[in-house]
Amino acid sequence: MHKIKVGIIGATGYTGLELVRILSSHPNVSIEIITSESYKGKKFSDIHNHFKGLLDYKLYSIDNLLDFNIDIAFLALPHGVSMEFVKKFGLDKFGIIDLSGDFRLQNSQIYYNWYKQEHICPEYLSKAVYGLPELFFDNIKNARLIANPGCYPTSCILPLIPLLKEKIIDMRTIIIDSKSGVTGAGAKVKESTHFPTVNDNFSAYGLLNHRHTPEIEQYLSLIANSDIEISFTPHLLPVNRGILSTIYVKPSKKTNQQNIIRILEDYYSKKPFVNIVNSIPSVKDVRGSNYCNIFATFDNRTNLIILISVIDNLVKGASGQAAQNMNIMFDLEESTGLSNLPIVP
Amino acid sequence: MHKIKVGIIGATGYTGLELVRILSSHPNVSIEIITSESYKGKKFSDIHNHFKGLLDYKLYSIDNLLDFNIDIAFLALPHGVSMEFVKKFGLDKFGIIDLSGDFRLQNSQIYYNWYKQEHICPEYLSKAVYGLPELFFDNIKNARLIANPGCYPTSCILPLIPLLKEKIIDMRTIIIDSKSGVTGAGAKVKESTHFPTVNDNFSAYGLLNHRHTPEIEQYLSLIANSDIEISFTPHLLPVNRGILSTIYVKPSKKTNQQNIIRILEDYYSKKPFVNIVNSIPSVKDVRGSNYCNIFATFDNRTNLIILISVIDNLVKGASGQAAQNMNIMFDLEESTGLSNLPIVP
Amino acid sequence: MHKIKVGIIGATGYTGLELVRILSSHPNVSIEIITSESYKGKKFSDIHNHFKGLLDYKLYSIDNLLDFNIDIAFLALPHGVSMEFVKKFGLDKFGIIDLSGDFRLQNSQIYYNWYKQEHICPEYLSKAVYGLPELFFDNIKNARLIANPGCYPTSCILPLIPLLKEKIIDMRTIIIDSKSGVTGAGAKVKESTHFPTVNDNFSAYGLLNHRHTPEIEQYLSLIANSDIEISFTPHLLPVNRGILSTIYVKPSKKTNQQNIIRILEDYYSKKPFVNIVNSIPSVKDVRGSNYCNIFATFDNRTNLIILISVIDNLVKGASGQAAQNMNIMFDLEESTGLSNLPIVP
Amino acid sequence: MHKIKVGIIGATGYTGLELVRILSSHPNVSIEIITSESYKGKKFSDIHNHFKGLLDYKLYSIDNLLDFNIDIAFLALPHGVSMEFVKKFGLDKFGIIDLSGDFRLQNSQIYYNWYKQEHICPEYLSKAVYGLPELFFDNIKNARLIANPGCYPTSCILPLIPLLKEKIIDMRTIIIDSKSGVTGAGAKVKESTHFPTVNDNFSAYGLLNHRHTPEIEQYLSLIANSDIEISFTPHLLPVNRGILSTIYVKPSKKTNQQNIIRILEDYYSKKPFVNIVNSIPSVKDVRGSNYCNIFATFDNRTNLIILISVIDNLVKGASGQAAQNMNIMFDLEESTGLSNLPIVP
Repeated sequence: MHKIKVGIIGATGYTGLELVRILSSHPNVSIEIITSESYKGKKFSDIHNHFKGLLDYKLYSIDNLLDFNIDIAFLALPHGVSMEFVKKFGLDKFGIIDLSGDFRLQNSQIYYNWYKQEHICPEYLSKAVYGLPELFFDNIKNARLIANPGCYPTSCILPLIPLLKEKIIDMRTIIIDSKSGVTGAGAKVKESTHFPTVNDNFSAYGLLNHRHTPEIEQYLSLIANSDIEISFTPHLLPVNRGILSTIYVKPSKKTNQQNIIRILEDYYSKKPFVNIVNSIPSVKDVRGSNYCNIFATFDNRTNLIILISVIDNLVKGASGQAAQNMNIMFDLEESTGLSNLPIVP
Repeated sequence: MHKIKVGIIGATGYTGLELVRILSSHPNVSIEIITSESYKGKKFSDIHNHFKGLLDYKLYSIDNLLDFNIDIAFLALPHGVSMEFVKKFGLDKFGIIDLSGDFRLQNSQIYYNWYKQEHICPEYLSKAVYGLPELFFDNIKNARLIANPGCYPTSCILPLIPLLKEKIIDMRTIIIDSKSGVTGAGAKVKESTHFPTVNDNFSAYGLLNHRHTPEIEQYLSLIANSDIEISFTPHLLPVNRGILSTIYVKPSKKTNQQNIIRILEDYYSKKPFVNIVNSIPSVKDVRGSNYCNIFATFDNRTNLIILISVIDNLVKGASGQAAQNMNIMFDLEESTGLSNLPIVP
Repeated sequence: MHKIKVGIIGATGYTGLELVRILSSHPNVSIEIITSESYKGKKFSDIHNHFKGLLDYKLYSIDNLLDFNIDIAFLALPHGVSMEFVKKFGLDKFGIIDLSGDFRLQNSQIYYNWYKQEHICPEYLSKAVYGLPELFFDNIKNARLIANPGCYPTSCILPLIPLLKEKIIDMRTIIIDSKSGVTGAGAKVKESTHFPTVNDNFSAYGLLNHRHTPEIEQYLSLIANSDIEISFTPHLLPVNRGILSTIYVKPSKKTNQQNIIRILEDYYSKKPFVNIVNSIPSVKDVRGSNYCNIFATFDNRTNLIILISVIDNLVKGASGQAAQNMNIMFDLEESTGLSNLPIVP
Repeated sequence: MHKIKVGIIGATGYTGLELVRILSSHPNVSIEIITSESYKGKKFSDIHNHFKGLLDYKLYSIDNLLDFNIDIAFLALPHGVSMEFVKKFGLDKFGIIDLSGDFRLQNSQIYYNWYKQEHICPEYLSKAVYGLPELFFDNIKNARLIANPGCYPTSCILPLIPLLKEKIIDMRTIIIDSKSGVTGAGAKVKESTHFPTVNDNFSAYGLLNHRHTPEIEQYLSLIANSDIEISFTPHLLPVNRGILSTIYVKPSKKTNQQNIIRILEDYYSKKPFVNIVNSIPSVKDVRGSNYCNIFATFDNRTNLIILISVIDNLVKGASGQAAQNMNIMFDLEESTGLSNLPIVP
């Protein structure tokens, strides 16, 4: 069997770690090179001790990348650094799946407004395909540059796609209250993610200015073919993995619970990773897996649709979705290597 | 100094435990009797081992209550049981502060609809004063029966009072997304509060049917002098204590952040336990204390007011607020015995 | 490929849940029947909601067991109930891997002393093979009844086997201080595993009387060919999965760290699931996997060997080890279907 | 009432934070100055947001210290920095209670061996009194320089004092297995205390080289009047506050459980903060309080005494004990301002 030759760029962060965990078990993948500028020369398992004896890949500098023959590079880099990589290597030698935010926004001015830095290769923005397979499957198939979606946007956009497509939502009243585990904030230590700060505690953060806001708005607007502004409030859970988003929307016409659920089930009936569930999901329901579970209810009293979605932010919200995109790009079954069951409890 | 003679009815649950912790250190209180039907004859510290040698009160049956001369009884009983107590003992011998939901709703039909049982002494409903001192201080002063507010309602009503009084809120669009620690679900073991179920996990619950919904609506309507329906969605945090409520409301007229904050600060300038804060609060900010911290922001983009409040559900959300009500009823300084600082981290 | 036909007896507890998770992904297994007396007629995913749409096996009563043709039955039953099953079905129709404690002790009197009930089929005790593959591989190969080891014993015996075999331990001074996640206490709700009791807390329990004590002693004695008594103190961690055991032993002759590590490495060089690691392990290093990681150090100052082992109590400490035993019994590669990598963080 | 004029040197760490919490509520204390080199000019509540409006002390540089007239300085500084302070200010102007490790070891060579730096003012070592009131009450009364004990040593020494004094312990076999919450590692962020590293996880650390080892040995040796070497293994709990130490010792003569408990109870009968308890304690039993709870059992089978102690590492293990020492130095009742009850759950 021919294997996809993969490079993983960036190995110290959580998304890099998770990419290696997923791709090293993928039946059609051969990991050719893993890079880390801080740890080049060391082994992957020197950074991630629990993989000692299991995944002892040597780490290289990006400078050695062209010594290896790869089909696709996964960029597990901070935003700002990813676009430098793309600018430098282009898309001729290998395809790129970028897990940062650098190619998710189609407009470099909006990028500047929310990321507070100039985009250095805006010419690639129009080439990038937003890697949400449940929305852009066909584009992904033919893409050379994938902008892998943010974790919050994945959890927020998926429940809304079918309802927007069916035009049963009042687009002026989308309120999203999201709660994320701490791995979503990355592996870099900060006071806000110090154990005694987060443990047995809970707070909101990033009010009005979280960078995932324009990303969510851009794709909802695209689906609705109309400008949509949302209210998006993230919160930090004392939990490692998982995002739960509670979404409040007004219907644009008379509806009921059965109707809403039918619309969701119809849209997702053929999608392997989205489950419409009939009991309220919890973040652990999808722990370690690539699933997104969605629950919907309709409140007659207040005429409000409430949608609740859960994902594992490191899997469907990052590295699992990246592997799903790779599968699609290389004409594999979408779920190849991604059928791990959730680990509960 | 004359001491208030207190009876605490119900000692096994968290609110009873917390009442004893607070009242045993209160300079003007003498605990005369603590009752527990399950543990009568034993000591309070037999149930709560950490108080061995510190709080060794003997436990009595309610049958012995009249052997003691008390000024006020705190009912730390389940709903349904509290109303039996009130029906049996009336209000002549001692005042009553009830921490259950039995006397919070003014209408026995609404009680039936949400609590799924008949109210057995509806004649007391009109006599009960809702013990939210920031709203009903004068009524509490003269009350014989206090319906101590629910934990969620306390966290939801406090931020909204000033804005409703100033009539700057569109009353049709109040969306409340609340997150509570597990002690809010009580000391009784259940599968939903089993450690492996909750730990490193997060979920919503009680969608559309939580009993605190009509309680919140009733008092918001009273303040606004108009029928208000809210959307209220509780979530369960892997945290012991604390509620954080994120409240989304539309302004009813042109406003801005400064204006909203000024309205909140004006209303609460003289209230000892409500702080209007200028950084996003976390539940630990008020841990073990009687404070409610409120943060407000206004989103120009989406024309939405976002309010975030935090309380300790067992203190301001239950036993601390009960002691605050007692202070008011007995003409003490409102904060007597309640000045414990939050314990962080 | 011929598949092993498997029955899983007991589906509500954590070991049953984990057996289904592991065996449903095992390439050589066909799950023929899952039983649950409490939920017969329902679906497996009705109890474990997160498997809705993924693992919708119908649940049967044990009364239906003989309608199915199985090669092996996994008993995920409480102790006391397992021996009823064995007594009733015997070993002729299918092999049995029992995850309870019923067949781990070879002496029915010791069983009575620690389990406080009579053994009802002591004639099977001598037929049972203790399913610790790193110790009894050959016996397991030919066994019809496997007594799958307890979680604590697995974590305690594995580090000691090589040192006892090499006779470098003073057998009178084995002190084991173990710490376990809460799933080790089972899925049944109790006050001691209520979330607010355990969260942000830590305690010892079962001092001097934990049932795993005689199990550990029996097999250590067997290895050493001499009566060994240990001090075993379990503690409860505010963690879902994982056991870390810290073991203190005196050497019986002059030794040093290199020597100890060499002995451990030699013994485990060919065992796929035991890793001798050179940095202090944490319970998360093996989360969701069948590995046991062991760290050893020697304190010259106090002349003490300190061994630290970690396992996932539900995998290597229960269901994973059970599957490993099945692989051995059916001549499969020991690690078939058990190569899942740990999920960190 | 004359108040003790207090300076708190260092305000950003957890011990400084806790000193302010405790001393600001102390009836006989007036906080004259709080210093912070990093935040001088700002307010205490600018660093610790939850104290906004409650404790708005201005922060000064140490350079301003002599502008204030203080009776006692509490040093909440890192080791190494404390000795610079003592060297600079001496003991003439005010007494000093140092919460670092700088003056706990009486021998500057041992200090060098374990702290890896030269002691810069060894002449003060003999002047320092080890501030464990249950051991050195009379010396504390007359001290000018208190070396406030480490958190682990407090939890380990207290249970052993009475048994060593009664000479019923075999001094060659003291094994201490300690488990601490994360605040014991300080407020400074590191990878080892990053939330996703610690949460739902557990590990040992500092094997054979933890700095509290010589501190424990020094005072046990002093009590026993004989050189004692211990085995001390610390572990990191996914918990904010609290230390539980499990201590294994052999008796030196025939004994039994009653005898051991009587010895402990006799020694501690008049000490306000040490409770000998008859059920296994958990760290939460003393949360937020200055108590140390001790449980003892004797295992006839293995002839081993097992002692379990719990403290709140920030209170009895640091700032509460410092306040207790101050009370003794200033002839106040030992428990003044320290009678806060534990907060459970």
